[in-house]
Amino acid sequence: MLKDEPGEERIIEAISGIFAATSEGVPVAIGDDAALTRPAPGRDLVWTTDLLIEGVHFQMDWQQPVLLGRKSLAVNLSDLAAMGADATSALLSIAFPAATDIEIFYELCRGFTDLAKEHRVAVIGGDTCSNQHGLVISVAAAGDVPRGQAVLRSGAARGDKILVTGYLGNAAAGLRLLQGGISSRYQQVIRDLLDPVARMSAGKAARVGGASAMIDISDGLSVDLGRICRASGVGAVISSGAIPVSGVLRQAADELGWDPLELALGGGEDYELLITVAAAREPEVTRLIKETGTPVTAIGEIQPPEEGVVLIAADGSAVPMPLMGYDHFKQHEDFK
Amino acid sequence: MLKDEPGEERIIEAISGIFAATSEGVPVAIGDDAALTRPAPGRDLVWTTDLLIEGVHFQMDWQQPVLLGRKSLAVNLSDLAAMGADATSALLSIAFPAATDIEIFYELCRGFTDLAKEHRVAVIGGDTCSNQHGLVISVAAAGDVPRGQAVLRSGAARGDKILVTGYLGNAAAGLRLLQGGISSRYQQVIRDLLDPVARMSAGKAARVGGASAMIDISDGLSVDLGRICRASGVGAVISSGAIPVSGVLRQAADELGWDPLELALGGGEDYELLITVAAAREPEVTRLIKETGTPVTAIGEIQPPEEGVVLIAADGSAVPMPLMGYDHFKQHEDFK
Repeated sequence: MLKDEPGEERIIEAISGIFAATSEGVPVAIGDDAALTRPAPGRDLVWTTDLLIEGVHFQMDWQQPVLLGRKSLAVNLSDLAAMGADATSALLSIAFPAATDIEIFYELCRGFTDLAKEHRVAVIGGDTCSNQHGLVISVAAAGDVPRGQAVLRSGAARGDKILVTGYLGNAAAGLRLLQGGISSRYQQVIRDLLDPVARMSAGKAARVGGASAMIDISDGLSVDLGRICRASGVGAVISSGAIPVSGVLRQAADELGWDPLELALGGGEDYELLITVAAAREPEVTRLIKETGTPVTAIGEIQPPEEGVVLIAADGSAVPMPLMGYDHFKQHEDFK
Repeated sequence: MLKDEPGEERIIEAISGIFAATSEGVPVAIGDDAALTRPAPGRDLVWTTDLLIEGVHFQMDWQQPVLLGRKSLAVNLSDLAAMGADATSALLSIAFPAATDIEIFYELCRGFTDLAKEHRVAVIGGDTCSNQHGLVISVAAAGDVPRGQAVLRSGAARGDKILVTGYLGNAAAGLRLLQGGISSRYQQVIRDLLDPVARMSAGKAARVGGASAMIDISDGLSVDLGRICRASGVGAVISSGAIPVSGVLRQAADELGWDPLELALGGGEDYELLITVAAAREPEVTRLIKETGTPVTAIGEIQPPEEGVVLIAADGSAVPMPLMGYDHFKQHEDFK
């Protein structure tokens, strides 16, 4: 490489080794005006994108760059999982202040590509530029599903069982711990916040088993269940006692005087899957998901729309589901 | 919509009308975890992404939001054009300070979707969030080409003619005018900076005519020609007198004491296409491009690699092509 070549070229060249090599399905990866992929016949393409901004989605004093790279991809994969898709390719764009230690940038790329390899996702391109005000990461990811078989939010029907993967509230608890400066204890919930698992195989299992609707829980169970109900034109009843809460979350909540249910219902960033399925198919979906090694729990049932979205409390009383997910624009004057 | 619903939901709902409706090729657009498209058989997919950041790529006191929306898509379409692709779909992510006048956001979306409609691009999704430090726009765009027919940077061969569409240097002149606070004169070059044309039909014509290599000129003719030469393992000779410079640029340069050749060679953001084609096919490519209404000019020839990249000056002397394109990281200590 020429000594007087511009820095951007050198960055691109330095990171191009991190990115996917060409293959049968990826005739051109990074290095041209655009990347080329060759879609498999008989499949629909699934597309998602997420923007992650320093100070909004992450704090650099909490987030190791390599985990931030992983998470940037994971949150996108989670959206593909929620369609029942296989992930295939991703684009990664990063803006950062010119004074940034370049190792941070490389670590971030490495985390991203490590997770991509785990899921056989080809990192086919991206963009990089400077930004005076901190790190900005934009990811677009794509996958595919057999034609016409994506699991949408709109398919839930009265009587369907409601399932959720994993445990809820850990990420929210992790955030509270970090915000309170008590990061040394309860490492697991902090890890769940900083390095979430994209439920790819569980999402695919749910599709294969015949799930009627699916969403990933990025803004809290209450908000994301509301989205399924609105898209499907249905109501739902959730049994608060059935909501899966991890032992470590119970322990942390006990010690710190938190309400684990509040965290499980309202905490964002769990990236677990919320699934509805006809009662007759529920055992099969549960079995298939468990076969992937993913915990799954039945937490309620789809109701007629006029019943609304209802939570059965510990004492057996029914209350309207509180809406308390995270919202970027809650403070926006125009949208109060 | 419920009164107590979060702002983000309301923004998404408000803009969802702006986005593409579902169609045969787009079974699910905005509104689910991910969008779905159905690829046409026998075609390769082409992918690109660009990040645009306030203060780096644009200044809000220069750039009307509607034109910024158009440009955000245009710079991505230009990358697809440079592959000879048809554009099909796009994802739009926008982060902005919570205090932003929401009309700016809507205008930006409107400009984006207006240009999308002009090019029959389905806007299938995106992301929105707050950002304390100004506007961030991330776009991913996709298109397709007949299988195996994308025009890469790497196909240029000795003896190929070098063509360029349109006129070079206008965008750089527009930037200088705006930076100098003299925005009232030479509106055309300012317009060329703020509302660039993506050369979709010319790019396709070049592919159909048999172009051997192609790139869009986003960082200046000298830098982007260098990229073709490096990817193809060739050199090039450019006749400075042949480089197309618009009348308005000559006029502005005359009045303001600028060197139009410097602007044409080094100015970024022209988004014209730089094309190489075997001499025997050059008349056909030129004819097909002109038929699209796009000006096209022959400016030089591909040389053996040992000749390097050379500029023939007005006095007939040959000088090495100066490298002077814009680089985001020129100031980066690690990359000097």
